[in-house]
Amino acid sequence: MKIDINCDMGESYGRFRVGSDEAIMPYISSCNIACGMHGGDPATIIKTIETAIAHNKKIGAHPSYPDLMGFGRRSMGISRSDLYAAVAFQIASLYTLVEKAGGKLHHVKVHGALYNDAAINPALAGPILDAIKYIDSGLVIFTLPDSILSKTAKERGMKVMHEAFADRRYNDDLSLQSRTIQGAVISDPVIAVKQVMGMVKRKEVITVSGEVKKIQAATICVHGDTKGAVDIAKSIHNSLTQERITIG
Amino acid sequence: MKIDINCDMGESYGRFRVGSDEAIMPYISSCNIACGMHGGDPATIIKTIETAIAHNKKIGAHPSYPDLMGFGRRSMGISRSDLYAAVAFQIASLYTLVEKAGGKLHHVKVHGALYNDAAINPALAGPILDAIKYIDSGLVIFTLPDSILSKTAKERGMKVMHEAFADRRYNDDLSLQSRTIQGAVISDPVIAVKQVMGMVKRKEVITVSGEVKKIQAATICVHGDTKGAVDIAKSIHNSLTQERITIG
Amino acid sequence: MKIDINCDMGESYGRFRVGSDEAIMPYISSCNIACGMHGGDPATIIKTIETAIAHNKKIGAHPSYPDLMGFGRRSMGISRSDLYAAVAFQIASLYTLVEKAGGKLHHVKVHGALYNDAAINPALAGPILDAIKYIDSGLVIFTLPDSILSKTAKERGMKVMHEAFADRRYNDDLSLQSRTIQGAVISDPVIAVKQVMGMVKRKEVITVSGEVKKIQAATICVHGDTKGAVDIAKSIHNSLTQERITIG
Amino acid sequence: MKIDINCDMGESYGRFRVGSDEAIMPYISSCNIACGMHGGDPATIIKTIETAIAHNKKIGAHPSYPDLMGFGRRSMGISRSDLYAAVAFQIASLYTLVEKAGGKLHHVKVHGALYNDAAINPALAGPILDAIKYIDSGLVIFTLPDSILSKTAKERGMKVMHEAFADRRYNDDLSLQSRTIQGAVISDPVIAVKQVMGMVKRKEVITVSGEVKKIQAATICVHGDTKGAVDIAKSIHNSLTQERITIG
Repeated sequence: MKIDINCDMGESYGRFRVGSDEAIMPYISSCNIACGMHGGDPATIIKTIETAIAHNKKIGAHPSYPDLMGFGRRSMGISRSDLYAAVAFQIASLYTLVEKAGGKLHHVKVHGALYNDAAINPALAGPILDAIKYIDSGLVIFTLPDSILSKTAKERGMKVMHEAFADRRYNDDLSLQSRTIQGAVISDPVIAVKQVMGMVKRKEVITVSGEVKKIQAATICVHGDTKGAVDIAKSIHNSLTQERITIG
Repeated sequence: MKIDINCDMGESYGRFRVGSDEAIMPYISSCNIACGMHGGDPATIIKTIETAIAHNKKIGAHPSYPDLMGFGRRSMGISRSDLYAAVAFQIASLYTLVEKAGGKLHHVKVHGALYNDAAINPALAGPILDAIKYIDSGLVIFTLPDSILSKTAKERGMKVMHEAFADRRYNDDLSLQSRTIQGAVISDPVIAVKQVMGMVKRKEVITVSGEVKKIQAATICVHGDTKGAVDIAKSIHNSLTQERITIG
Repeated sequence: MKIDINCDMGESYGRFRVGSDEAIMPYISSCNIACGMHGGDPATIIKTIETAIAHNKKIGAHPSYPDLMGFGRRSMGISRSDLYAAVAFQIASLYTLVEKAGGKLHHVKVHGALYNDAAINPALAGPILDAIKYIDSGLVIFTLPDSILSKTAKERGMKVMHEAFADRRYNDDLSLQSRTIQGAVISDPVIAVKQVMGMVKRKEVITVSGEVKKIQAATICVHGDTKGAVDIAKSIHNSLTQERITIG
Repeated sequence: MKIDINCDMGESYGRFRVGSDEAIMPYISSCNIACGMHGGDPATIIKTIETAIAHNKKIGAHPSYPDLMGFGRRSMGISRSDLYAAVAFQIASLYTLVEKAGGKLHHVKVHGALYNDAAINPALAGPILDAIKYIDSGLVIFTLPDSILSKTAKERGMKVMHEAFADRRYNDDLSLQSRTIQGAVISDPVIAVKQVMGMVKRKEVITVSGEVKKIQAATICVHGDTKGAVDIAKSIHNSLTQERITIG
């Protein structure tokens, strides 16, 4: 059995620090590196790429709406052509830097509000996929199962890896419970490990109402900026390893 | 006889428009495209790259201090490591985008205050060259003759093309007359053509004091945002062509 | 008879110049000055305030979504509390600066996408009015007639001035024809003058379909960044003056 | 005996959080609130002002070079007129907001690299003081003893409060030991309390070489973003209170 564990990284901006990139890096198999538009200054981005390569992790670009103040977590009424250009530009920056550091860009996971919007809006999914294809049609797209982005990518013959979340509670329709609801973000490593184990071994998740739902995921996201993120990542890593489930 | 004519381009930022890129493109042989830190939004950058490739022009990256409000024209006390990263990041963005558009990045010309500072300060020239080498050691560096950046690049075995200016008056020591002095920027195409012809045919320039000085230049810069820029570029192009001097 | 003529100003950002503020200033009675979030650097803002006071014009704050790259012309999914704070902050900057320059802030006109969004969305109109009231409940709100912003402001006992446009074509429902449609922006001073005269003297406008519709406006907007903006402003000013209609 | 204790606050930017403002607020008497150019988004700034007023603390503006990525810690070659405008604009934003929240702006402490540069460079001190005077000539200037900013302010009849640091080591010439040197920033509350007690009771500080030097300070800065900042602030507060030294 095998599962990819991914984490958003490189989101610090100058002296504004977020996440615990170096502490979490050993416990994951893929990282999604910010591209400067919601976080990620050049020095942080380059250092994160080098750390990921040193740890032999898969590297993805993590492009977003151009909104530093909102950390890419606010929807924006950006035109299709501007969205296309913004995503292509962000991936391009990472693409060369990873190559020159001796690696190869593996995937793209769009960030924040753009991740959610592109899951349901074809007017966004289209330009995003155009941009990815423009840079490298072999890049894997990390996205929600059953999302518009996933369906459109598959129709175009592009590679997709479906994502589930270790540290977020699920509604009955498998959407994520809103962060504004108390308890929506899981900070207890024991509960996170239990959720991951269900997802990996039984392809199941227990929703907020207690229902058991089927869920398909090729990669599981752990967040680096939640409380106890390092403990969660470490616990998941150790539990999976003990069960002889390959991380990668 | 042969001379390269270069122009800074792609410096518009969203709805803030600068320059006359499309009008000037036919008359030059090289363009230096902004990388987003003093100007240049993604859509502008990608469009400028595509236009340059359609016109079969050489493309350079035009990285700067990270200062949009100051348009890269203010010196900044940036650390060596941050400067290195900022320059590498900016070149990287262009590098992939040019390649994916079917071209190949040809050169790097640093912008504004960084151009002037790197000409005289080894603490800046070093990290800039490190960054260029990191991306591609074959990239040509456009810089002032006798500059620290030129000397250091040559010592490292990197390629340099020395630059002169069509539309700026020269002091007796071949530094540029400050823009703050009336007449320092040439807006009359006849005078600009005369200066370029002297530079190309006799390797000479007439300084502000009327002295004739020797000057060596492999590329001549025309600015795109000065008054009458299109006329100047067109006049220079036509005059060189009439004299059977190859532009390229 | 009397009509206010307003124009957006101070939208330049560093070396990125927009508009023809000084040329248009003599022909208007109110200016709406950018507050730094879609345009307007500090030096531009302060200079524009001083010019307006020297010309004895009414000054308004022109706050927007925080989106420099998009010039405030893109909707953003900003929270109510962040919108409230962004608008209060932007008005506050202008408020003190105008006072210290010897004037008094007269009105608030929200900019771009926020102007349009607040006209139809109570979730935006509310926080905007809260912010205005927080700074000074005597500030006049420039907005579209029949807008949610207008209705909500009146319900709260706040002052409103309804706005019509000299240089934009109207649909039959008195919404503005989209800028993306050819001819939606009027660049011919003769046509603009005719539209303004109809609005002022007969309270009427001829829509895109040729219908004559009643329209109520206490202030008429001329744009500073459209083609022929200075000519339009001057022509309107001269025509109104000839007809002994007071501008102010 | 009486001493003012000040702390920089409101420097978070959107989801990028810095400092422990609410935890430190009870232990200080003055806060210096960021104005948006090195940190400080509108919601953070307004909330910090309201918290300070609720705690009955003196409020200062904390303007900086316009450099979010560098957190205002990099010198910039900004023109005198742009510096003047940047400082006036930043103070203006706070001035109105504090007034509308029911307080009154008490002082100005320039931030980071601008703080250090203005201490030694009259070309910067001049425009900064012009800007402060433009907003309110009664504002107190927090600055280093013997600085150019202090001297120039006094010559102009402006109010000055000299500042010393609780958590920074001093060189023999009473300049601060560079942050790049190990141990330059004090993180042990016991040592910080000892330094503050010497400064307040004996007007003395022990330098890095062990010398005892006279130091005059009307206000003592504790940093909010250093390790153990809350403990340091609390310990200083408690020790001063025990010794019946008034904080304020």
